[in-house]
Amino acid sequence: MNFASDNVSPLCPEILEALSAEASGNAPAYGGDDPTQRLDRVFSDLFDTDVAVLPVATGTAANCISLSALTSPYGGIICHHDAHINDAELTGPAFFTGGAQLLLMDGPVAKLEPDALTAYLAAMPARGVHNVAAECVAITQATELGAVYSPDEVAAIGDVCKSHDLRLFMDGARFANAMAWLDCAPADVTWKAGVDVLSFGATKNGAMAVDAIVLFDTSLRFRIEQARKRSGHLHSKHRYLAAQLLAYIKNDVWLNNARSANDAAKTLNDMLVTLGARPVHASCSNELFLHIPDDLAKRLRDNGVSFHAWTALGADVYRFVTAWNSSLDDIRALGQRLAG
Amino acid sequence: MNFASDNVSPLCPEILEALSAEASGNAPAYGGDDPTQRLDRVFSDLFDTDVAVLPVATGTAANCISLSALTSPYGGIICHHDAHINDAELTGPAFFTGGAQLLLMDGPVAKLEPDALTAYLAAMPARGVHNVAAECVAITQATELGAVYSPDEVAAIGDVCKSHDLRLFMDGARFANAMAWLDCAPADVTWKAGVDVLSFGATKNGAMAVDAIVLFDTSLRFRIEQARKRSGHLHSKHRYLAAQLLAYIKNDVWLNNARSANDAAKTLNDMLVTLGARPVHASCSNELFLHIPDDLAKRLRDNGVSFHAWTALGADVYRFVTAWNSSLDDIRALGQRLAG
Amino acid sequence: MNFASDNVSPLCPEILEALSAEASGNAPAYGGDDPTQRLDRVFSDLFDTDVAVLPVATGTAANCISLSALTSPYGGIICHHDAHINDAELTGPAFFTGGAQLLLMDGPVAKLEPDALTAYLAAMPARGVHNVAAECVAITQATELGAVYSPDEVAAIGDVCKSHDLRLFMDGARFANAMAWLDCAPADVTWKAGVDVLSFGATKNGAMAVDAIVLFDTSLRFRIEQARKRSGHLHSKHRYLAAQLLAYIKNDVWLNNARSANDAAKTLNDMLVTLGARPVHASCSNELFLHIPDDLAKRLRDNGVSFHAWTALGADVYRFVTAWNSSLDDIRALGQRLAG
Amino acid sequence: MNFASDNVSPLCPEILEALSAEASGNAPAYGGDDPTQRLDRVFSDLFDTDVAVLPVATGTAANCISLSALTSPYGGIICHHDAHINDAELTGPAFFTGGAQLLLMDGPVAKLEPDALTAYLAAMPARGVHNVAAECVAITQATELGAVYSPDEVAAIGDVCKSHDLRLFMDGARFANAMAWLDCAPADVTWKAGVDVLSFGATKNGAMAVDAIVLFDTSLRFRIEQARKRSGHLHSKHRYLAAQLLAYIKNDVWLNNARSANDAAKTLNDMLVTLGARPVHASCSNELFLHIPDDLAKRLRDNGVSFHAWTALGADVYRFVTAWNSSLDDIRALGQRLAG
Repeated sequence: MNFASDNVSPLCPEILEALSAEASGNAPAYGGDDPTQRLDRVFSDLFDTDVAVLPVATGTAANCISLSALTSPYGGIICHHDAHINDAELTGPAFFTGGAQLLLMDGPVAKLEPDALTAYLAAMPARGVHNVAAECVAITQATELGAVYSPDEVAAIGDVCKSHDLRLFMDGARFANAMAWLDCAPADVTWKAGVDVLSFGATKNGAMAVDAIVLFDTSLRFRIEQARKRSGHLHSKHRYLAAQLLAYIKNDVWLNNARSANDAAKTLNDMLVTLGARPVHASCSNELFLHIPDDLAKRLRDNGVSFHAWTALGADVYRFVTAWNSSLDDIRALGQRLAG
Repeated sequence: MNFASDNVSPLCPEILEALSAEASGNAPAYGGDDPTQRLDRVFSDLFDTDVAVLPVATGTAANCISLSALTSPYGGIICHHDAHINDAELTGPAFFTGGAQLLLMDGPVAKLEPDALTAYLAAMPARGVHNVAAECVAITQATELGAVYSPDEVAAIGDVCKSHDLRLFMDGARFANAMAWLDCAPADVTWKAGVDVLSFGATKNGAMAVDAIVLFDTSLRFRIEQARKRSGHLHSKHRYLAAQLLAYIKNDVWLNNARSANDAAKTLNDMLVTLGARPVHASCSNELFLHIPDDLAKRLRDNGVSFHAWTALGADVYRFVTAWNSSLDDIRALGQRLAG
Repeated sequence: MNFASDNVSPLCPEILEALSAEASGNAPAYGGDDPTQRLDRVFSDLFDTDVAVLPVATGTAANCISLSALTSPYGGIICHHDAHINDAELTGPAFFTGGAQLLLMDGPVAKLEPDALTAYLAAMPARGVHNVAAECVAITQATELGAVYSPDEVAAIGDVCKSHDLRLFMDGARFANAMAWLDCAPADVTWKAGVDVLSFGATKNGAMAVDAIVLFDTSLRFRIEQARKRSGHLHSKHRYLAAQLLAYIKNDVWLNNARSANDAAKTLNDMLVTLGARPVHASCSNELFLHIPDDLAKRLRDNGVSFHAWTALGADVYRFVTAWNSSLDDIRALGQRLAG
Repeated sequence: MNFASDNVSPLCPEILEALSAEASGNAPAYGGDDPTQRLDRVFSDLFDTDVAVLPVATGTAANCISLSALTSPYGGIICHHDAHINDAELTGPAFFTGGAQLLLMDGPVAKLEPDALTAYLAAMPARGVHNVAAECVAITQATELGAVYSPDEVAAIGDVCKSHDLRLFMDGARFANAMAWLDCAPADVTWKAGVDVLSFGATKNGAMAVDAIVLFDTSLRFRIEQARKRSGHLHSKHRYLAAQLLAYIKNDVWLNNARSANDAAKTLNDMLVTLGARPVHASCSNELFLHIPDDLAKRLRDNGVSFHAWTALGADVYRFVTAWNSSLDDIRALGQRLAG
């Protein structure tokens, strides 16, 4: 069983079917095709407001292209130390923005907290030319440590942004897992809470390779299109990006996949706790962080379970990530085998 | 019938099948998967030398990432005015290289010519800090005007590059179409002729979204990997890029697809000439440029044929591009319909 | 005698005196000093409109920082092949703009011509994401070949820019020499003619190291200040930049210096013609380009005269540049020596 | 009395004299002049090894250009939170390096400590393509909080760098003040201790506008020259940069100026302590950080003393900076006035 990452999972049947359906017949290139033309409508319905949607093949591209439209080369992007844009995108944010600096904050479970953010901003020198001034705040939903912002929490950050003239970006690489946990509409944790641009992940949750840049500020569209083109992220056979997204949204595939992953995470968590593990913190999505006794870790590995050490949280801490295709039966069977 | 671009064609059956074969089961992310691990071997066999292969999803990415490893931010890239990197990648080359400048030359059928290149270099000021010095030469095989460099022609350019300490890059967005026309081994027009890095296109010729950066200078691998990551072009589910490439190479799918497209171009060319068109120059690949009388252009459009005006070559010039799925029967039927 | 460049000349007495006058006593750093605080007023008077003035130490800095505020990383800057920004600033324009591309035009005596510019723009593909669209036009006054735009000529280019939504930048490295030749107000060839930003040169014409970025569009000020700071061009002891500029403007030092240089150029030109030289074109400033017979060139060098070959204009063409300190007497004496 | 910054001081008489001496007569541009040609020799003597010296007009330029030759666009620069390159150069380091990220550490008196550095490096993930790997360490001598690294301290950091394949950069904006405090040769705290490149400051300590990039690794010269040119930092009348540096070195002007400033700082410190101030930490150079009672702060301001609050170190902390021209007599007279 592979809990190393949700990136190890394959694409899901609905998306394979959608790609297959585009396997014959010609179609206009570079987004002139029918699936692409339908994207804005489908996502506007999903988010209950007019949005512009630009798909790219990776989350790093979605994040960095988005940030390049929200931050000048002279500005700063406030994010958590554990944010993917700081930890796992090499120097992508500086590359795409032309030099913007990440301004790093701490906070529990990889969350930014509104009060801490306000204090951080208050402690910055007055805007001038010598020091980097914040222009954008970036949060991740669900966070890199498996936590989820409630609508109120996002809105509180959004309020701080508004009052300080900052743009708000949401890295939603696991947005589906967050939504599956929250009892609210997508609008509630995004534009209604002050988010300007969302990186709407699909790859980790059943797509082959597509994340969508969702612009709640549609005036950014041409700038984003230019940034996408010159960074090599405009696909010629664009319909294959669009088709993935349409199939992902249709019939709630995105939410159902995420619910499966979240359920598997819960089941796995309970099973591991029964065996002696202790959660570092409660998970709200498909990522678990647990203290695992050495012998349990060894027995898991001996039973073919893959997972990563996460020593930043403790020498005995490990991360487990479930995915849309994680099998509850397999997890239960593993539990029985290990308990036996 | 759509001759607007080869990008309008769908992915081919062999590649769809390869993607479907990866639709169940987990696999390591970011290139740790089996298909990716086989790439270097398969391409080394194809090119008869040890190469490193890094797939990306677009030709612009393959070109610009490659150039970023061959040119410093202070240098120049000599290419033809009609080169894709000048005409159709926005400011990508400057973005990826950190500021390198395109140095533009003319030449027939979008080709650089060795003597003209030597003369161009001789006319440049001595290398100093004031003016941009060439560091790289970029050629396109097949060219943007449908021509093909022979092995001797590439080797002659390669010799100029060597004697001037310049790197040689080949944009092979339509490399397959060139190879289908040439009677030689892939090695003969690439590393044996002095090419350092090849952008090996697949998307236009039957893939869904993959072009491969082929490094004949394998020492560039880590730099290219870094450039690929930070530009958002490292796919998490990397196996889907690799699977496309493996299926594309296997059983000569790439050459067979290209031969179909080239044959269709020849048939289309002959049909159009019969109807009164006049080639601007002979085509060696799947792109045709013809003078078309107004009434013929109108009749083609009236019969549902799509193609682009190419006024840079003349007010009455049009471009027709065939693809792997262009039907000879359909072309012939169209010819009969129009001749009738 | 040194006619290699006007950069070989020393700073002029008035400017040395101004620097000396700031050699005792403390003053606020980074532009809070009195001389700096007076700059906007002095230049607003000079240009008869409200301007913002930001001094930097070099012309390349003035040009590239200016262009970075007038062109996005996705856009193009139309300029002449012979423009300093293309020929002699390495890859500075791409560096400062974050990737903008120079779009090169020809034209007599290094001038852009309005009709040719209109035709050039008409021949560009429609604005999209694939090809670089012009965002800015850059002209040089006086041009790199010693010519000068009349107010009408600049205004005609300004009109083209306005009708195409392009910004107009003027590289005035030798603006003083141009003004000394023209019979008009500085306003006439700048903002009244549509110029948005002027790089107002002083270094070549008697300063030690200062060129001023003059913003007719004062809304660009903060962006320029940021670009200046992060590129290391904000001087801490800013008063020494400002003092140079104030002394340069006061009592028409700038114009008097330029007149001296222009007069010397005229005298030198006449002398050389008498000896058998033939101007490539008439000069309006302090740069001469002449066909020189081999034996005359040799005799000049033998008599200690420094000057550069300018083979781009012909195998027998040489450039002579006079400066504010060129001596008419010395030139005449040389003429007599050579004629003797 | 102005203790706001050493940047408020004027240029010193020796340097004004050197500039005046270059005020007549022509000289080759762009560094072909005699003063420039002597720089390498003079600095090689000073540092007792062969160095290459490239002057620029500002410290930010010296720092950022240096870093651009020591760090790739994909790498990280470890420095202290309080480092000038993090705090006061806007986004310059990312701009010049093409995207490198600052990796921030803490440490007493703005110093990096070797053990903490080793621990920091050990805690970083293994070098890969996802996370930024350190390529360079940057330290400041004297530090931004007035402390000075001993030769052993620098050497200990140098050893860590060597064992981790990192380059070592020293920001010496106040190198003279550090050397005036240390009892050692310049070589001892630079190349003998592992420093690859030094930004050798002069502006704050008596120059008008010049800091020198001193390359102990002379193989970096051409790359630095290119970076300097394209960023607009190559002065045409280069002799005026070189003349400042030569006068600054000659007859130990640099050390004498720094000793004056350091002595003034000591005198000022003692005077303030007598009046009730309490040093945050002992100063080794010309910057003091003291807790000042409110009423003392008020009385100082009332007596015309300028200085900055430094709340990052405490609500009652203020910074005082002396300069080469600070008068001991004035400081003593102030003390008597305030004590009276």
